[in-house]
Amino acid sequence: MKTVQEQLEIICQEAEEILPLEELQEKLERSVASGLPLRIKYGVDPTAPDLHLGHAVPLRKLREFQDLGHEVILLIGDFTARIGDPSERSITRPQLPPEIIEENAQTYTDQAFKILDKDKTTIEYNSNWFAKMSFEDVLKLAAQFTVARLLERDDFASRYAQEIPIGLHEFLYPIMQGYDSVALKSDVELGGTDQKFNMLAGRDLQKYFGQEPQVVITLPILEGVDGVKRMSKSQGNYIGLTEPPEEMFGKVMSIPDSIMIRYFKLATCLPEEEVKRIEKGLAEGSLHPAEIKRRLAREIVTIYHGKEAADRAQKVFDAKFKKVSGKTAVEQLATIEGFEIPEVVLPKQLFESGKIWVVKILTHCGLAKTNSEGRRLIQQRAVRINNELVTSVDLDIAVSDGDIVQVGKRRLVRLRIGN
Amino acid sequence: MKTVQEQLEIICQEAEEILPLEELQEKLERSVASGLPLRIKYGVDPTAPDLHLGHAVPLRKLREFQDLGHEVILLIGDFTARIGDPSERSITRPQLPPEIIEENAQTYTDQAFKILDKDKTTIEYNSNWFAKMSFEDVLKLAAQFTVARLLERDDFASRYAQEIPIGLHEFLYPIMQGYDSVALKSDVELGGTDQKFNMLAGRDLQKYFGQEPQVVITLPILEGVDGVKRMSKSQGNYIGLTEPPEEMFGKVMSIPDSIMIRYFKLATCLPEEEVKRIEKGLAEGSLHPAEIKRRLAREIVTIYHGKEAADRAQKVFDAKFKKVSGKTAVEQLATIEGFEIPEVVLPKQLFESGKIWVVKILTHCGLAKTNSEGRRLIQQRAVRINNELVTSVDLDIAVSDGDIVQVGKRRLVRLRIGN
Repeated sequence: MKTVQEQLEIICQEAEEILPLEELQEKLERSVASGLPLRIKYGVDPTAPDLHLGHAVPLRKLREFQDLGHEVILLIGDFTARIGDPSERSITRPQLPPEIIEENAQTYTDQAFKILDKDKTTIEYNSNWFAKMSFEDVLKLAAQFTVARLLERDDFASRYAQEIPIGLHEFLYPIMQGYDSVALKSDVELGGTDQKFNMLAGRDLQKYFGQEPQVVITLPILEGVDGVKRMSKSQGNYIGLTEPPEEMFGKVMSIPDSIMIRYFKLATCLPEEEVKRIEKGLAEGSLHPAEIKRRLAREIVTIYHGKEAADRAQKVFDAKFKKVSGKTAVEQLATIEGFEIPEVVLPKQLFESGKIWVVKILTHCGLAKTNSEGRRLIQQRAVRINNELVTSVDLDIAVSDGDIVQVGKRRLVRLRIGN
Repeated sequence: MKTVQEQLEIICQEAEEILPLEELQEKLERSVASGLPLRIKYGVDPTAPDLHLGHAVPLRKLREFQDLGHEVILLIGDFTARIGDPSERSITRPQLPPEIIEENAQTYTDQAFKILDKDKTTIEYNSNWFAKMSFEDVLKLAAQFTVARLLERDDFASRYAQEIPIGLHEFLYPIMQGYDSVALKSDVELGGTDQKFNMLAGRDLQKYFGQEPQVVITLPILEGVDGVKRMSKSQGNYIGLTEPPEEMFGKVMSIPDSIMIRYFKLATCLPEEEVKRIEKGLAEGSLHPAEIKRRLAREIVTIYHGKEAADRAQKVFDAKFKKVSGKTAVEQLATIEGFEIPEVVLPKQLFESGKIWVVKILTHCGLAKTNSEGRRLIQQRAVRINNELVTSVDLDIAVSDGDIVQVGKRRLVRLRIGN
């Protein structure tokens, strides 16, 4: 077991705030002295999300706790899910059946265990305590919070100021999250900076119930590949943990240079000093941004797919973007061992007299969202079939099984003719 | 059964607001057509209050509904009482045991049945539904209200503006009161103007649960004998429904002339036209305020104690306040048949060598609150014992069983020497 000081150093790295640090130190001291692990809580929605690099920030911190010998509790908020996400005001949405919740939790953990140590992870469901809770219990919890304090929470404050309705049940959510900490007797809770208020509510309720309050650790929220908004599925700016290596590599390469260092810090395992060295090199101009970004992409892909896949992903990326000795991207790609071009089946009924409208191929393969986007891509001379430029948007063409459709330099699909 | 129009006239009299009047009319029309009574809800705290003329305002309106053939439901808020009055923030107060709640309800109804018709009154307890309610149910109810709307309630708005804490559980109270209407399927709820928000919450929840919303009737809040603040026990400005006739009469005589008409309207059974006639007479100077106030006092005492007691109370009052043919107040009082001077026991241990400090007599008998008030009364030459003026505050005196202590003109106590 590492010393308190060593543990603190690891835990503090990249954490936004530790509230309060002294209490974390005390807890660690007791843990080291007694040999008893700390209980680290992390709350999870019982939806079936595509986990992405944004989710990975807390998960990787949890993994650090595990590696230090502590116990991680993934709390599945299945009770909360019955009611609906407050920010959506959709309280009448049907209650998720237990099988679906179980399935969603499975989907979550399948991905999360790419980062977490399964054997040191406990899964809990908050319906276990909330389903049994009486109205009287709820009133007692609610009495611990004032309306003014709840209205200080950033998102509530801004909605109230902008006259965007806040349902009263939404005020109960921080309290529920807080009570989860009581039920779990957690020593530490971690989450994004946006969770700070709710996690501090846990401290209050633990004190009210005579428990030692948990330490709250807030972690930065990772920006998406646009470099501006927080990474999220709904923004379409995310890099999923289960995305194929090539896709992941390409997406990392698409981030603006300005947030490379942030990705190094929050999404790789590089030691702090190495990140500082890179930052300095970039600032001084002794390191080239494009090369550093390739390193970043390789580091990230290695975490989720291993070194070999990362190497291949880099070759694929180079094949697509670096013009080599007059070869086409497809020809270059063909030389990469183990690389598979994604395949899409075109069902026969899409054809008329053996032919199919070229724009329809693009939309069917997901290379264009709409017919007009498809037309635009063709007009921009961005579409090739078997390396041959498509020059007209009105073309009906005959395609064969195995033909390759290419949009821009990066996007490739191999066509399969279905029945 | 009276016609809809006749009923409306009676119901509307002295009501502050009827929300909405058209719906009340519709409900009455259906009731008249079907012969089915309306369900009239009135909420009652399960404390053991001294009911006073302020409480009598809604109770008398309920009685009017009963006389029109409708059903009155007294809702005892026993569940609410378990948690504590929100305005006191004392949520940890011990849960009232069912026997005490039953006893308090009994105390309440014993007094209320001086006004209500017992046979047309149903008693309900809201623990019947709230004790069974789950957290999920609570969240669904809470979701029907926005924080902004709750903050619009007058008292919440002013507390929020003044930064006086509002516990989140307090926000749940209007919702609970509203849900009571759902559980009772009430057609009408009535209460003081301060209850308007909570009663309207009932309409919202009834709609949410697919019921026809109740009509809300707000009634004026009666001022206390000071003529300024609302009548309440804590303000000490109340006239209790069970006070002895003489006490009641005297208290009514002490109200300022300016609120006599309001008392006529809200606390007597006089028809509207008669009150108008009195108002006119006072304004024109053709009626004498002191005489009108004696009438008011007699009317009120008659309601709660009958005509005979009212007559006697008037004689007692006159004996105390009207100098008649040189007789002392005590001598005059002695001539009134059936009048008893209240008695107070002085325990022997209060005496030293057979004597007692005169100020101590006043405080012990409740004729002065403090020693300094007692001294002041004596210095103001307001204290007599057996009709003899007490001239010094330092007197130790010997008193005998049956002696009469008098403070000012009105307050008399007969001393009894205890063991």
